[in-house]
Amino acid sequence: MKYQKTLDHVINELEKISNYNYASSIIYWDLETEAPKEGIEKASQVLGFYSGESYRILTDLEFNKNIDLLLENIDLLDPINKKIIIETKKDIENIKKIPLNEYKEYNELLSKAQSIWAEAREKNNFSLFLPYLKKIITYKQKYVNYKGYNEHPYDALLDDYEPGITVKQLDIFFDNLKNRLVPLILKINKKKNFISNDILKLDYPIEKQKEFSIFIAKYLGFDFKRGLLRESTHPFSMSLNKYDVRMTTRYFLNDLQSSLFGTIHESGHSIYEQNIGEDICNTRLGGGNSMGIHESQSRLYENLIARSMEFWIPIYPKLQETFPENLKDIPLDLFYKAINKSQSDLIRVEADELTYSLHIILRYEIEKELIEGKIIPEDLPKIWNERMEKYLGTVPDSDSNGVLQDVHWAAGLFGYFPSYALGSANASQIMNSMKNKLNVDDILKEGKLEKIKEYLKENIHKFGKLKDPNEIMEIATKEIPNSKYYVDYLIEKYSKLYEI
Amino acid sequence: MKYQKTLDHVINELEKISNYNYASSIIYWDLETEAPKEGIEKASQVLGFYSGESYRILTDLEFNKNIDLLLENIDLLDPINKKIIIETKKDIENIKKIPLNEYKEYNELLSKAQSIWAEAREKNNFSLFLPYLKKIITYKQKYVNYKGYNEHPYDALLDDYEPGITVKQLDIFFDNLKNRLVPLILKINKKKNFISNDILKLDYPIEKQKEFSIFIAKYLGFDFKRGLLRESTHPFSMSLNKYDVRMTTRYFLNDLQSSLFGTIHESGHSIYEQNIGEDICNTRLGGGNSMGIHESQSRLYENLIARSMEFWIPIYPKLQETFPENLKDIPLDLFYKAINKSQSDLIRVEADELTYSLHIILRYEIEKELIEGKIIPEDLPKIWNERMEKYLGTVPDSDSNGVLQDVHWAAGLFGYFPSYALGSANASQIMNSMKNKLNVDDILKEGKLEKIKEYLKENIHKFGKLKDPNEIMEIATKEIPNSKYYVDYLIEKYSKLYEI
Repeated sequence: MKYQKTLDHVINELEKISNYNYASSIIYWDLETEAPKEGIEKASQVLGFYSGESYRILTDLEFNKNIDLLLENIDLLDPINKKIIIETKKDIENIKKIPLNEYKEYNELLSKAQSIWAEAREKNNFSLFLPYLKKIITYKQKYVNYKGYNEHPYDALLDDYEPGITVKQLDIFFDNLKNRLVPLILKINKKKNFISNDILKLDYPIEKQKEFSIFIAKYLGFDFKRGLLRESTHPFSMSLNKYDVRMTTRYFLNDLQSSLFGTIHESGHSIYEQNIGEDICNTRLGGGNSMGIHESQSRLYENLIARSMEFWIPIYPKLQETFPENLKDIPLDLFYKAINKSQSDLIRVEADELTYSLHIILRYEIEKELIEGKIIPEDLPKIWNERMEKYLGTVPDSDSNGVLQDVHWAAGLFGYFPSYALGSANASQIMNSMKNKLNVDDILKEGKLEKIKEYLKENIHKFGKLKDPNEIMEIATKEIPNSKYYVDYLIEKYSKLYEI
Repeated sequence: MKYQKTLDHVINELEKISNYNYASSIIYWDLETEAPKEGIEKASQVLGFYSGESYRILTDLEFNKNIDLLLENIDLLDPINKKIIIETKKDIENIKKIPLNEYKEYNELLSKAQSIWAEAREKNNFSLFLPYLKKIITYKQKYVNYKGYNEHPYDALLDDYEPGITVKQLDIFFDNLKNRLVPLILKINKKKNFISNDILKLDYPIEKQKEFSIFIAKYLGFDFKRGLLRESTHPFSMSLNKYDVRMTTRYFLNDLQSSLFGTIHESGHSIYEQNIGEDICNTRLGGGNSMGIHESQSRLYENLIARSMEFWIPIYPKLQETFPENLKDIPLDLFYKAINKSQSDLIRVEADELTYSLHIILRYEIEKELIEGKIIPEDLPKIWNERMEKYLGTVPDSDSNGVLQDVHWAAGLFGYFPSYALGSANASQIMNSMKNKLNVDDILKEGKLEKIKEYLKENIHKFGKLKDPNEIMEIATKEIPNSKYYVDYLIEKYSKLYEI
């Protein structure tokens, strides 16, 4: 090819960025899972250094000239390199609007903020975290101006996770959810005790929970030769590459659901990353797609699969054997109801499927208003609690269980929460389509989860970032993303469960 | 200062190297403690990348010009920067003789070799490891020629760990040990069953061993807010900086000594690293000194302190409480003898103080001959076993317990083993000097270990790499390093123990 040398130079520079990312990811993993407290500050500086190095490459003049040259001759490139160049150009456009020193400081701030957040949450002390949160929000407000937006400043943040989506679209999306789901939620609130999940709150020995978490991750198809499962304050997944994909969960003695569905959720993310196609796995396209696609995979496994009756038929006996004192005499039917109890509760990650989106709507609205400057960080605990009462009819007993519950803001993830709801909608749409091709219920009953993994690999996972989110949804479902299947699924499932 | 800008540039470049080292260390730690198997290859490539980046800086023309300019004006610099420039120049001289591609390949090779070694050791399969070992030796043979040497090619390797020491000096050192110790060892061999350590080989529950390991590390003065203790195939210590110092040990159900003295040994290394002076901790001088000094600290704690009667007086009851079934009825006197039983045994890291140096002599001789090409790697299992019989009168039951027992060769550490013996000699010399200033026996009996930590900090630790090894020994003992105190100590201790 005429521009082979230009391409080689670009690929070589991208390889450096990939190595910086590798180092940053391992340092991040270490910080989240075991680093000693007093080592955090230095680790944060090192993270700042590596993000600065990536910045330096992306804003380098020669690199930019080469990218532009390749863009002018884009049709000479094969599809993979074509997409690599286009995506790199987007990164450049995003990053070069931000001054280097601000970018580096911000990245250092984030890694420190996450440790402080963990401490603040543990100590139920919002004021510990407040100064960091203020700095992060100030940066985000500057960032949206650097980046630019057409209608709403929050659009600039949404675009980082779900390219192209806007406040305008989301307002409609969430209004539809509110309008159709809230009436059902209100009816269920009146039948509060129709379903009990007390059996999930007995003593579940941590070591046994760990054992079952490993079992269930394997059962879903997570490959432990290419991955790890550990513990952290907030469950997360992290892919170094498809050969090393790591995830965490958390264990509470009196809460079986937390570790169980935490592990299943993260397995969904991690199985996705382990299934990226060989052709792209060593390129910048070799990771999961947008957050809305990524969350569709975790939620598909967590909810549509693992909160179905069929899923538990072959493995409920194993769960009973692991916790005989608690479950020996509990029939599957009761267990199934318990894991699907709908309850207007405090913690997002432990919310049932039906009330979940209200947790998201609350965060979505608060983030919009913070970015606009309509509300200030100091007032967050108060505002949080007021809106929890308004939307879910319940007031947090502590900031740890309220405004401090999520790591996202400490990690700078403003504009990210809506992806969870979009992910749920995508998951229902994908499941609907998968059911047209596979007999999913039978597969689950027979415990042949590898068939589902294979289907998802072929229709979604293997593409990595090679396709755009909408293209992926087209391939997997022959439709553009919409909320229809999601709302239909929830209404059908919960009307039946609560006999409404 | 006139050359401030030049100095700033150099310090900035060294900061980059420090960040590359930070990343490499964390990746190494991860590989040794938890990385999934299939992720190793990519991790090795990334390590290769970072060593290449450091190489690039050290061989950069402008950087070299700046270093030389500062060297010409060295008296304008303060003592810390002076030493930084001198040490950096040494690094440059060492590295620039090696071609970049060889250097990078070698570093990738090492990280892979270590994982393969662990597997080979586990499976008792030397042939798995052989191809890697051969490549490492070939590289080392090239390396000594690149580096150059006056008398013996092995001198070039020794110099990496103990600057200035030669085969000529070591032959004398080891001959002295052989001549004075072997007669005693032979006598003790005849009184084989005079002391028993069977009580240390009962069932010691792993979880209880872990608990006691944490206790003893804290007791010695290891600060867990600035460090970690984990598990790995071969115990090691690693310092990211004085605020994050990590160590590992290993646990066997039927061997209390392994985890106990493994932890104490590594605590010696790690306490050293945690005590580096604040004035140098963020510079390239902010780590422990030569291997002979570093090992003196681990061995001082492991042997001179923790294998003394006084040390156990205040804490033996705690050990008894931790393992009541095994130790409740064992008086301290018996325990003291058990942990000091001399036995011509297979495993170096578990050897008693007296026979230990014979393990080193064996490795020293083999390494010399491998580098000279007098013996070939294929013959190593045979040669190893023959010499074990000759020196220690015992033949390994497997290569795992023979030639595969140490990680060093897989890590490229040829020329390193002699430092262990030098470290032991230094430890005795330092202890002798410390006893002139402190009542060490009383301190141990009263359990006031912080006084010893404080003494070592002031006389050795705080200097980091600011002084040369011989200067450190001068400061700490007012003598140059010698083997007198070491041999005297061993002969006195073991003659008494065995009533010879």
